[in-house]
Amino acid sequence: MNVNHSTVLEAAARARSVWHQLARLPVAARNAMLADMANAVEDAAGDIAEANAKDLEIATRLVAAGELSLASAKRLELGPEKLAAVVQGIRQVASLPDPLGKVLLARELDEGLVLRQITCPIGVIGVIFESRPDALPQIISLCIKSGNAALLKGGREAKHTNAALFEAIQSSLQGFGDAFVLLKGRTEVAEMLKADGSVDLIIPRGSNELVRYVMDNTHIPVLGHAAGICHVYVDAAADVEKAVAISVDSKATYPSACNAAETILIHASIAATVIPLLFARLSESGVEIRADRTSRELGSGAIEASDADFGHEFADMVVAVKVVDNLNEAIGHINRHSSHHTDTIVTEDRRAAAAFLQEVDSAGVFHNASTRFADGFRYGFGAEVGISNGKMHPRGPVGLEGLITYKYKLVGNGHIVAQYSGPNARKFTHRDL
Amino acid sequence: MNVNHSTVLEAAARARSVWHQLARLPVAARNAMLADMANAVEDAAGDIAEANAKDLEIATRLVAAGELSLASAKRLELGPEKLAAVVQGIRQVASLPDPLGKVLLARELDEGLVLRQITCPIGVIGVIFESRPDALPQIISLCIKSGNAALLKGGREAKHTNAALFEAIQSSLQGFGDAFVLLKGRTEVAEMLKADGSVDLIIPRGSNELVRYVMDNTHIPVLGHAAGICHVYVDAAADVEKAVAISVDSKATYPSACNAAETILIHASIAATVIPLLFARLSESGVEIRADRTSRELGSGAIEASDADFGHEFADMVVAVKVVDNLNEAIGHINRHSSHHTDTIVTEDRRAAAAFLQEVDSAGVFHNASTRFADGFRYGFGAEVGISNGKMHPRGPVGLEGLITYKYKLVGNGHIVAQYSGPNARKFTHRDL
Repeated sequence: MNVNHSTVLEAAARARSVWHQLARLPVAARNAMLADMANAVEDAAGDIAEANAKDLEIATRLVAAGELSLASAKRLELGPEKLAAVVQGIRQVASLPDPLGKVLLARELDEGLVLRQITCPIGVIGVIFESRPDALPQIISLCIKSGNAALLKGGREAKHTNAALFEAIQSSLQGFGDAFVLLKGRTEVAEMLKADGSVDLIIPRGSNELVRYVMDNTHIPVLGHAAGICHVYVDAAADVEKAVAISVDSKATYPSACNAAETILIHASIAATVIPLLFARLSESGVEIRADRTSRELGSGAIEASDADFGHEFADMVVAVKVVDNLNEAIGHINRHSSHHTDTIVTEDRRAAAAFLQEVDSAGVFHNASTRFADGFRYGFGAEVGISNGKMHPRGPVGLEGLITYKYKLVGNGHIVAQYSGPNARKFTHRDL
Repeated sequence: MNVNHSTVLEAAARARSVWHQLARLPVAARNAMLADMANAVEDAAGDIAEANAKDLEIATRLVAAGELSLASAKRLELGPEKLAAVVQGIRQVASLPDPLGKVLLARELDEGLVLRQITCPIGVIGVIFESRPDALPQIISLCIKSGNAALLKGGREAKHTNAALFEAIQSSLQGFGDAFVLLKGRTEVAEMLKADGSVDLIIPRGSNELVRYVMDNTHIPVLGHAAGICHVYVDAAADVEKAVAISVDSKATYPSACNAAETILIHASIAATVIPLLFARLSESGVEIRADRTSRELGSGAIEASDADFGHEFADMVVAVKVVDNLNEAIGHINRHSSHHTDTIVTEDRRAAAAFLQEVDSAGVFHNASTRFADGFRYGFGAEVGISNGKMHPRGPVGLEGLITYKYKLVGNGHIVAQYSGPNARKFTHRDL
């Protein structure tokens, strides 16, 4: 539902009660819901196009007034091709294996006393996403597949499109409509962040400011990352052509992505060879180079880097460059300045690569590959619910596993712990089944 | 080290720099450290006994003055037998399989581009534990095994014993001494809770007040549980003898444990049979019964329960009892009042059991077994670092897995993402290896 709930807490409570029914649906029923949902979105194509046109019209005015970036306005667009991809995406989620009911551990503790660790849904997820309206059906489809309910808050700019998508989806959910709630404004988001006990996990997808705000204002676990500060380290034993190609790819293919590189570190012994070529190729690609003194002496077209440029997320066609004396200095620099998202080494020296992969303390540690491979789709996860820079599970790009947890089921026949202590104590067998 | 570090942040930074070396030690070297540590504790038995006598002397005075419970004072004792168990525990941790470097996923993304998800240490762990001094060597041994550094804060009452244990352990750590820091007071704990970026995970082991304080005062992830409010539900189809035995065992074997039952729910149709026997056996065991009106009409010896008694953690020889009309009411009551730790159903009806295990939203859902089996040792985890009531991993009793995380290692040969888009885009193979 999306109207007339008097408070977010009440809506969350209703979502939770419907969740219990959603969570116990067999996978065939969840997949049938997804099939209905895909058809409903397809059938509502006209309404969705109309709503999207309205959002685009408003966005165009905002761009003209300088209140919205052209890039943000473009992300709003949901034409026939993109809508077809949305529908296909829902059907794809239906075809994924069931993430629920997987037995992670089966162990006999004693005769007739069996422990099983089994995957299950998390509960009610709060998702906040900006701009791209195709996020809404994607998130709901992943939630249905994984047996979770969700409170959703979309970007203001996509509000008509989100409402049309949501209405189409609601019409296909039958008795499970209350499991999904579309929140309207910032006040409702603030209320949701305070709903410990009613909401189990918050997934913010959007700007650093959004994620930082969420993390600072809730006690509910947050799956996300505030910053994506990735590094390319060009080692002494790098292949120069690979080094240049990986550096340019890591920065320039999508500079505002969280997996884009912000800093390139170059070993002193190869700097004179790499830098002239690298600076030329970065400049050709339209990248502004902010470099330390040593690099600027070796290549042209760079401006002077300030200390603050290292460890800064430009999220734009800008990169910081620095020459380092050795591998250890590179690793130290990265562990200090990285956001622990993804960092890569370019080298033909296996030992240097192994040390880098071992010692760099990031969710993704790469060798001779662009940082931009750090992505749920490229990793083959089928779908991505977010990327976590945290240390605890789930870490890195997160697929459906970010929407499931597990519980321990123990089945006995009247077993009590008193029998396992004292002089005639029974002993546990702890036999894996 | 445990003296003269000017701030907790500096100590954490030193611990982190030593951690990088600890994390890359092969398992044989980590096990050798554990062997040295066990010997060092054994050799320091005299000093440890002396320190423990000092703590016990102070505790005895505090008990006499009514400032410390006898139970807390007893937990301080570390006699020769317990110390031998501590030493054996360290050697046992050495014998556990290596939790590091396990390959959780190995996948070819494309020719020559291979992704591996590999277990690794978390970093610097902050551990706060109360009373029992044997926790200190246990935690350090688990950290060494899992390649983590730790800041530790023990209970004030055990301060001499902790210092003696810590000194003995430090003497065996050689170059890795700075990886472990013994904090002295509450101010230092408060500083540690603010050390985001330097400390990766906080594990509080102790009273609800401690855990609640920690959770409310840090942005660092917390592994723990504030409350243990467990339920026993006696179903219509329960075996009466099992029901009574499991209820008494769940409450009375260790009433202050987090896995002890606080509420017993009884199906109306079996209440008249179960309650007289149950109340008699609970009273015999010294348990105070706070019951609703219906139960009090069926059995004797109970006092009137208030609403607040349901969902309350007595952590004492007190239990709340209530008659429910059916399984759904029981499940609803538990999902509302449980702390999502562990809840059990007693029944011979497999369908009722399956529904309970499916729908009760707790880390442990048991059938015909005492709630007190919810424990890392009883689950066969070898060692327990804590129990988490949270939904996210790790959930429930947590063994060494609570001290490890994973990273994604991607190895290519100059691979860039630009090759995977556009008209001649390469396709990912996503072939599991």
